[in-house]
Amino acid sequence: MASDNNKLSLDSIRDSLIRQEDTIIFNLIERIKYPITPTLYKEASSSSWNISGSLFHYLFQETEALHSKVGRYLSAEENPFFPDKLPASIIPPSKCTPVLHPAAECVNVNEKILDVYKKQLLPLFCTDQADDEENFATTASCDIQLLQALSRRIHYGKFVAKVKFRDCTDQYKPLILAKDRDALMKLLTFEAVEEVVKKRVAKKAFVFGQQVTLNIDDNTKEAKYKVDPSLVSRLYDEWIMPLTKLVEVEYLLRRLD
Amino acid sequence: MASDNNKLSLDSIRDSLIRQEDTIIFNLIERIKYPITPTLYKEASSSSWNISGSLFHYLFQETEALHSKVGRYLSAEENPFFPDKLPASIIPPSKCTPVLHPAAECVNVNEKILDVYKKQLLPLFCTDQADDEENFATTASCDIQLLQALSRRIHYGKFVAKVKFRDCTDQYKPLILAKDRDALMKLLTFEAVEEVVKKRVAKKAFVFGQQVTLNIDDNTKEAKYKVDPSLVSRLYDEWIMPLTKLVEVEYLLRRLD
Repeated sequence: MASDNNKLSLDSIRDSLIRQEDTIIFNLIERIKYPITPTLYKEASSSSWNISGSLFHYLFQETEALHSKVGRYLSAEENPFFPDKLPASIIPPSKCTPVLHPAAECVNVNEKILDVYKKQLLPLFCTDQADDEENFATTASCDIQLLQALSRRIHYGKFVAKVKFRDCTDQYKPLILAKDRDALMKLLTFEAVEEVVKKRVAKKAFVFGQQVTLNIDDNTKEAKYKVDPSLVSRLYDEWIMPLTKLVEVEYLLRRLD
Repeated sequence: MASDNNKLSLDSIRDSLIRQEDTIIFNLIERIKYPITPTLYKEASSSSWNISGSLFHYLFQETEALHSKVGRYLSAEENPFFPDKLPASIIPPSKCTPVLHPAAECVNVNEKILDVYKKQLLPLFCTDQADDEENFATTASCDIQLLQALSRRIHYGKFVAKVKFRDCTDQYKPLILAKDRDALMKLLTFEAVEEVVKKRVAKKAFVFGQQVTLNIDDNTKEAKYKVDPSLVSRLYDEWIMPLTKLVEVEYLLRRLD
């Protein structure tokens, strides 16, 4: 969708964002079946594992390098967490006209996403502080899938901003020229829409987090859920939506360069 | 669970297998949002990408190598798809007593799983034969997550077989000594249980594949589902359960070595 300039509409973007909610919730449910596993994120002493940084950092950076070789970051929808360390793609770039303004490439809030993820999200969603040594790689894979899903969703703000600018250029232009972040943020905030998103993701968390059994009694008597719906609502309210709007503002501020 | 010999029971194994159904269905739903992307699996001519084998093969093998370094295959629950190419782990192996008989390591049906996956499952579940060049890496990541989930589930047969043997040694021993595969297969097949599994995974596919909306009318009038529940039932019936039982038989045949 996003590679075809003409089809880019607020409706198609909205459909993609709604579908991405499912991806985020599936990946969240999969990650939090493991404990936090603090050792994974601790800086390794050089003597122990002979890598620099944490095991998680090592795995994530190497995974990105591998994905970069097969062209992951040629897509305007993908943004690397370690942009300085990427090898070139062996796949040639697509010949389509880019959808986004060239300045879009400079907009990358992954450092913030990673920081929030480790410091706030994991402790909020994982109840158990324990290590799961046997599953270091499996746990880190789930982290990476979830972080990539969050990053994709949040950086979709570039497409949102592009279409909002295209459809209301007259409203956005003076605010961009004045570099008025607050006014831009206000112009692209729709509280009623955000309320709907928060309710919908809570409902999705409830539906996807159910323990589905064939016995109807089981569903009513002692229902256990894999993720707390109110936390998923909070995830969107406090982190995903504000960071998306930050991406929108950053994109708009560069839109006239 | 599986690392603690004493706690290993048919009940705990059953709980894990049921939870793994959710993982498989989530990963399946995520993979089939992309088309088949045939180019990903085609053998690359050496001139074009300077790799041997397909892009997918390259990505999967390199991903396994990376995971191996952080100890993925030290876990008895994980089985590599490319066992001959694995670098050593930088994490030391756990000091717990192994749960499985040492011969368990020789039981690996991943080659079959990969073959079935590419030739039968992808064409069955993905409606669109198209390429999605922009998402080669993302699509392959979903493949790898799904294949690892399928492999984990199927090789859980080793734990199932271990407990069945422990609980009914007298029944299994003569059949193992006689190398009677057919009788072993019969002894560990419970058709009523398999019927329940098939029904439950279809229900899960239905629940997790819903398009969840806040509008109640939307749910009834034109419901769209992300995956066909009857195909998920078939996935278990024709591939997952038979391959699990194959793993059980192979494990049992080596159990007295």
